[in-house]
Amino acid sequence: MYLANVDFDALIREDVPYFDLTSFELGLDHQPARIAVFTREDCVVCGTEEAREIFRRLGIETLSMKWSGEEAHPGDELIVGQGEATAVLTAWKVVQNLIDHTSGIATKTGRFVKLVHGENPEISVLTTRKMYSGTKALSMKAIMAGGALPHRLGTSETILVFQQHINLLGGFDRMLAKLPEIKRSSCEKKILVETGDAEKALQCLRAGADGIQIEKLGPQELTEMCNAIRAEFPKAVLLAAGGINENNAAAYAATPIDGIVTTSLYTAKPVDIGVKIVPAE
Amino acid sequence: MYLANVDFDALIREDVPYFDLTSFELGLDHQPARIAVFTREDCVVCGTEEAREIFRRLGIETLSMKWSGEEAHPGDELIVGQGEATAVLTAWKVVQNLIDHTSGIATKTGRFVKLVHGENPEISVLTTRKMYSGTKALSMKAIMAGGALPHRLGTSETILVFQQHINLLGGFDRMLAKLPEIKRSSCEKKILVETGDAEKALQCLRAGADGIQIEKLGPQELTEMCNAIRAEFPKAVLLAAGGINENNAAAYAATPIDGIVTTSLYTAKPVDIGVKIVPAE
Amino acid sequence: MYLANVDFDALIREDVPYFDLTSFELGLDHQPARIAVFTREDCVVCGTEEAREIFRRLGIETLSMKWSGEEAHPGDELIVGQGEATAVLTAWKVVQNLIDHTSGIATKTGRFVKLVHGENPEISVLTTRKMYSGTKALSMKAIMAGGALPHRLGTSETILVFQQHINLLGGFDRMLAKLPEIKRSSCEKKILVETGDAEKALQCLRAGADGIQIEKLGPQELTEMCNAIRAEFPKAVLLAAGGINENNAAAYAATPIDGIVTTSLYTAKPVDIGVKIVPAE
Amino acid sequence: MYLANVDFDALIREDVPYFDLTSFELGLDHQPARIAVFTREDCVVCGTEEAREIFRRLGIETLSMKWSGEEAHPGDELIVGQGEATAVLTAWKVVQNLIDHTSGIATKTGRFVKLVHGENPEISVLTTRKMYSGTKALSMKAIMAGGALPHRLGTSETILVFQQHINLLGGFDRMLAKLPEIKRSSCEKKILVETGDAEKALQCLRAGADGIQIEKLGPQELTEMCNAIRAEFPKAVLLAAGGINENNAAAYAATPIDGIVTTSLYTAKPVDIGVKIVPAE
Amino acid sequence: MYLANVDFDALIREDVPYFDLTSFELGLDHQPARIAVFTREDCVVCGTEEAREIFRRLGIETLSMKWSGEEAHPGDELIVGQGEATAVLTAWKVVQNLIDHTSGIATKTGRFVKLVHGENPEISVLTTRKMYSGTKALSMKAIMAGGALPHRLGTSETILVFQQHINLLGGFDRMLAKLPEIKRSSCEKKILVETGDAEKALQCLRAGADGIQIEKLGPQELTEMCNAIRAEFPKAVLLAAGGINENNAAAYAATPIDGIVTTSLYTAKPVDIGVKIVPAE
Amino acid sequence: MYLANVDFDALIREDVPYFDLTSFELGLDHQPARIAVFTREDCVVCGTEEAREIFRRLGIETLSMKWSGEEAHPGDELIVGQGEATAVLTAWKVVQNLIDHTSGIATKTGRFVKLVHGENPEISVLTTRKMYSGTKALSMKAIMAGGALPHRLGTSETILVFQQHINLLGGFDRMLAKLPEIKRSSCEKKILVETGDAEKALQCLRAGADGIQIEKLGPQELTEMCNAIRAEFPKAVLLAAGGINENNAAAYAATPIDGIVTTSLYTAKPVDIGVKIVPAE
Repeated sequence: MYLANVDFDALIREDVPYFDLTSFELGLDHQPARIAVFTREDCVVCGTEEAREIFRRLGIETLSMKWSGEEAHPGDELIVGQGEATAVLTAWKVVQNLIDHTSGIATKTGRFVKLVHGENPEISVLTTRKMYSGTKALSMKAIMAGGALPHRLGTSETILVFQQHINLLGGFDRMLAKLPEIKRSSCEKKILVETGDAEKALQCLRAGADGIQIEKLGPQELTEMCNAIRAEFPKAVLLAAGGINENNAAAYAATPIDGIVTTSLYTAKPVDIGVKIVPAE
Repeated sequence: MYLANVDFDALIREDVPYFDLTSFELGLDHQPARIAVFTREDCVVCGTEEAREIFRRLGIETLSMKWSGEEAHPGDELIVGQGEATAVLTAWKVVQNLIDHTSGIATKTGRFVKLVHGENPEISVLTTRKMYSGTKALSMKAIMAGGALPHRLGTSETILVFQQHINLLGGFDRMLAKLPEIKRSSCEKKILVETGDAEKALQCLRAGADGIQIEKLGPQELTEMCNAIRAEFPKAVLLAAGGINENNAAAYAATPIDGIVTTSLYTAKPVDIGVKIVPAE
Repeated sequence: MYLANVDFDALIREDVPYFDLTSFELGLDHQPARIAVFTREDCVVCGTEEAREIFRRLGIETLSMKWSGEEAHPGDELIVGQGEATAVLTAWKVVQNLIDHTSGIATKTGRFVKLVHGENPEISVLTTRKMYSGTKALSMKAIMAGGALPHRLGTSETILVFQQHINLLGGFDRMLAKLPEIKRSSCEKKILVETGDAEKALQCLRAGADGIQIEKLGPQELTEMCNAIRAEFPKAVLLAAGGINENNAAAYAATPIDGIVTTSLYTAKPVDIGVKIVPAE
Repeated sequence: MYLANVDFDALIREDVPYFDLTSFELGLDHQPARIAVFTREDCVVCGTEEAREIFRRLGIETLSMKWSGEEAHPGDELIVGQGEATAVLTAWKVVQNLIDHTSGIATKTGRFVKLVHGENPEISVLTTRKMYSGTKALSMKAIMAGGALPHRLGTSETILVFQQHINLLGGFDRMLAKLPEIKRSSCEKKILVETGDAEKALQCLRAGADGIQIEKLGPQELTEMCNAIRAEFPKAVLLAAGGINENNAAAYAATPIDGIVTTSLYTAKPVDIGVKIVPAE
Repeated sequence: MYLANVDFDALIREDVPYFDLTSFELGLDHQPARIAVFTREDCVVCGTEEAREIFRRLGIETLSMKWSGEEAHPGDELIVGQGEATAVLTAWKVVQNLIDHTSGIATKTGRFVKLVHGENPEISVLTTRKMYSGTKALSMKAIMAGGALPHRLGTSETILVFQQHINLLGGFDRMLAKLPEIKRSSCEKKILVETGDAEKALQCLRAGADGIQIEKLGPQELTEMCNAIRAEFPKAVLLAAGGINENNAAAYAATPIDGIVTTSLYTAKPVDIGVKIVPAE
Repeated sequence: MYLANVDFDALIREDVPYFDLTSFELGLDHQPARIAVFTREDCVVCGTEEAREIFRRLGIETLSMKWSGEEAHPGDELIVGQGEATAVLTAWKVVQNLIDHTSGIATKTGRFVKLVHGENPEISVLTTRKMYSGTKALSMKAIMAGGALPHRLGTSETILVFQQHINLLGGFDRMLAKLPEIKRSSCEKKILVETGDAEKALQCLRAGADGIQIEKLGPQELTEMCNAIRAEFPKAVLLAAGGINENNAAAYAATPIDGIVTTSLYTAKPVDIGVKIVPAE
């Protein structure tokens, strides 16, 4: 997979602001060392391309690695490198944190996608913008490694009208009146509106919207609302959002939606990753 | 609480790389708007000082706020601001993500600390360096808002010898031989060694170590090991680490340790935070 | 308009890396000064919100300003500020360069949009990703101030298949075979393919593409190709790209396309902007 | 030529904030690919050293390249590289934008220098500080590749008194009175004053100035003013600035000035650059 | 004086990476506090504008301050501010380090300038590029506050030929041959060459150089070399560099040079600055 | 030794903001050049790992080097590299400034440590947080290369109570009352208090402090105070701080303290380092 666009030097500095005092006091320095990062659980791997880049910046040669998106099993080595002792000890937790958190998200995403696609393989699994502040680049890669795609990376390239926009605009009707013009000026984009009201959804679609994000309905009401919409707009994009997680994903996947939008994948227990550091001969 | 040292402009850019296309297309611009961030659950608040700073950078006046570390209940407003519509719509998810994730960690930490101190109020609750890459400043503030403290912020100011250091040094005895010298040169710091072996722990303490980090023992074995050590070194600092979480915290708190070191608090479900945006009169 | 997300401190440093030597040698220092930025030509204003931010960072109070997107005429003041002499002399060219280049692009865009919409007001005017390296935030604001919209801000949120992708994939048919799956996984996005061949365009649309970017056809051939496509897909999004500029925009606007994609607006003569600096009483 | 000091990672992020969605959806990943950047017009090449650096950061090996400052003709390859498909697709437009804009400026500068030096090869061609905000490093390299030199890179290392300084100082005579002292304290630098008035120019030179920047005079008046100055100060540095461009450069070059200062070279049509990407065998 | 262009947030983070643990443990938080920075010695003040900016970023109001370049005496307050306790404790050492080091350099520079100008007030005191890595912005301000000026801020805006250039060029004669062309293309700049050989100096001046930097001659030999040059070039700029410090500055000032170039001012004992922090009423 | 975590690109830009004008005007470009950095004095080497990194970023191959912490004698080469002429001329002063300043500090530290350990080899030599703003990473490495260790890298990982904290807390007794609780919550850290009063010191130690930082006592009073404390707390950590330098270090080393805390090592005359640049064959 692609290399995520993160500030690698900042990640190193976050764990080793100046030096590893313990190593310095013990006199560890230029001697050659070998570092192997392995998993103690089944997982979908993520973060190894980034680990390789951290190795590269620290002068550590990568001897072998698995790609992000591959599956791994207990004992599998995810990345193995060799370099000077101080470099290896610096890379250690930086790489471990990177891999265990992103692999945790990738693994959880993999399970979620399997649940959804077990029910209906046609449904898009999309993740919201609501990841932990500062982790977008890594979290996006992690959910993509696990088989999902981002819903919106930011607000600058997609159109999704929320109630908050409508409030500021002065009401639903004013928003409706704007849709035809938006459709023209942004002819390449699909226009979505968030609402849980079937009548409002129909009004939006009639005014030019391409799809509806339906928030916080249960599977039953959602099905009804989708059916009401599809009766008139069989090709409207219908997304379900709000409170969907591993427990109810299959139920939502059984409704007539096109995509599930979820935040739940960002909070994943890190994979149990071990690191073995030994002298290199 | 203090303002965490994060790159606020980067957080804004992460969600709004250039502009909010939806707002632009709807014609929302300089009109005055009010934003209120409120909780839908009981929580320990975190991130409001940072939200205030984001408001300030976007020209939004903060009208009221709760401090990080305070408790809040469903419906409570955590921060309320007023500014131009484009600014308020830009701040929206930036501030929401910041507050819901950090408050989630603070709230989970608060529960954990209560569990531990319910058993033994003398025990330090310490969190590891193993947070999600790139979130140290926010995660540290969150666990401190919840009542814990960081174990080690990085490797540059504390001494903790791991098996990995020992491997590179050429064995346990070589490490032991170094301890007296380290004790002299770092006279201000406590020297800790990680081991799960009582005999090795005693050797370290005899050689000058101040404490032992004991990893991955169950409460019963941990108690035995602590007792063995305390018999000779009643004041040694004894930390339990590895696999401690909300489920077993009370059991660990009942052992004769000084501190619990845990990673489990960093993976916390975000608090259910809502944002209301309306025209300001 | 919104404040563009640029590194204001870097812009200041670019012109005044350390200090203004001339001012220092002349002994100019804390005395109050007034700075007025005015236009010597008709223009669409851009960059004033950013100029105001530069003023703010340098402790200069903004006394009056026009918004980006407004029209201005010879002699009109675009922004007026007051502050310490060293601050005003530091802001001078930083603000002038910012305003004259972005207003130049906005003004040229305004003319271009007028040309296109004079012919057909339904056509989207979109600008490519091919602006001068490092100027995306300012150039985007400038074309939006002038009435256009960005085609794609980057490659991460939109789907547009180029010949280069097809080459690497191993041919057109392999790409075609992928389209249905992409349509499912990215149900919220329109899928576009670039081709100048009507038959290939139809194949793509049959396989699920939402639109075609047609490059480097003259208006006559373009019309034929559009008609051929529309016969089968009346709602396909059809964009014309490649070599469209002020000289031929009207001719392209007379074809049955939905949008014009152009690079030509990024190279615009800066507006002739003057700066008057005098002592403040 | 030297490698310009730009933030290469930011340039990459500007075009590919996270990943190339189209490539990801098409399944393009680690397969080897070849990228060739070629020109469709005669040009003076610029930006290839920077393109090579972008290749290097993305793990693309540079197979061949022309240097900045060399001439190229239709079909000539400017830089050719080979790497993983995702890397090559990421580099694509980043490198194309960099080369086409800077080569456009270099090419226009080359023509301008030829015009001036055809008239008088002794005249310096100098470019102002008024380039597009944020492009100084690239624009400087481009004009140098074309044969010009920067007039002033910033305000910290050169002395040039403008009317704005004089206004704040309280008048021309006060400025005159400062010149002898500046001459002493900045003995290594030439002191220039901008004025279009011959008498004022002479007063400045008598007080110690080394040269005069003469703004916005036509060639005839400029010649008269230069002659008036040279009668008394045959070695004074005389620069012409303001409104000089390809149309009138030769006329200005025929006057008795030492250097032409122009902004006109920064707005140059990008060279028509193509990029070919194919599988590497 | 002007505000130096430094990364203020980085300076704060350098001393307070996350929070002040001592304050946190003591429970110090939002209570109002007053901070006064005062001197215990006579000094030339520097760094107060930067201290004010650090105060501003931390929400501390500046109540009074002296400007950089002013003199101060034991007990004088250099800057006084008021803000929340955590902010004041964060600012403390950041501001103290900034002021004591820069004031140390300013004070030493003031003494040095007095020594030189006591001998000959016409001589420029110039400082080299050889300051401590990373301190250029602060060190430049400090020597300017003390009455000196920078010799060269960097290598991009001035011409000074060293033996190292000559070596790579293939010898002195090749360099000589280049001078006339450089004189033309850089007509605004003085061309200097470093040499300690009078005959070579004369050859350079005959070829168009404007001045000579004479390194590491004693005052007697320097006088002889200057006299030999002045006999033919009375207006050549002659600079003495290499090993000039407070002990020999007066002797060098008695030679017929125009300027002294020294590195010695950058290594200055910090001024003894105290900081008083008390509760604000 | 480890590579210090500095912004290498910023260091290069600090000396060569855009290009070396002299080299450009002389026509120096891609020809191969050799650079050798050598010392003219006995010194403890520092900064060579960082010089190697700067070489690497500029495409210069390092041919040989000494490690930081090694001793060198007049004429010894500290680092030797080979690369393109423009790269070598860019690296020149960047590397020279880095090595001469840090080696100056390392060398002075080496002498200081020898003085102290000549008197008592058990004493820790520690350096304060009061280095020149912006130089922490380099200054820390330099004092460590010379044999000292940092006292506190920042305020976030150590506990040291100052009078300023006590003032804000409302008095000494309130601080005393907090110590037991701090001891519990920060069980891994030693708690230090700064005071010059023996009785207060004893009160702190009785309340749980681990050590006392004693400021600005002469050796005689310091000895008395230490003896008074040791009578009751034989293992308390006792540090002497304030005004300790090369002149009085031996006298302080003869007192019964555990460590000396000094600022004096940061102001060190740079080592006289030469750089030889010649064509590479």
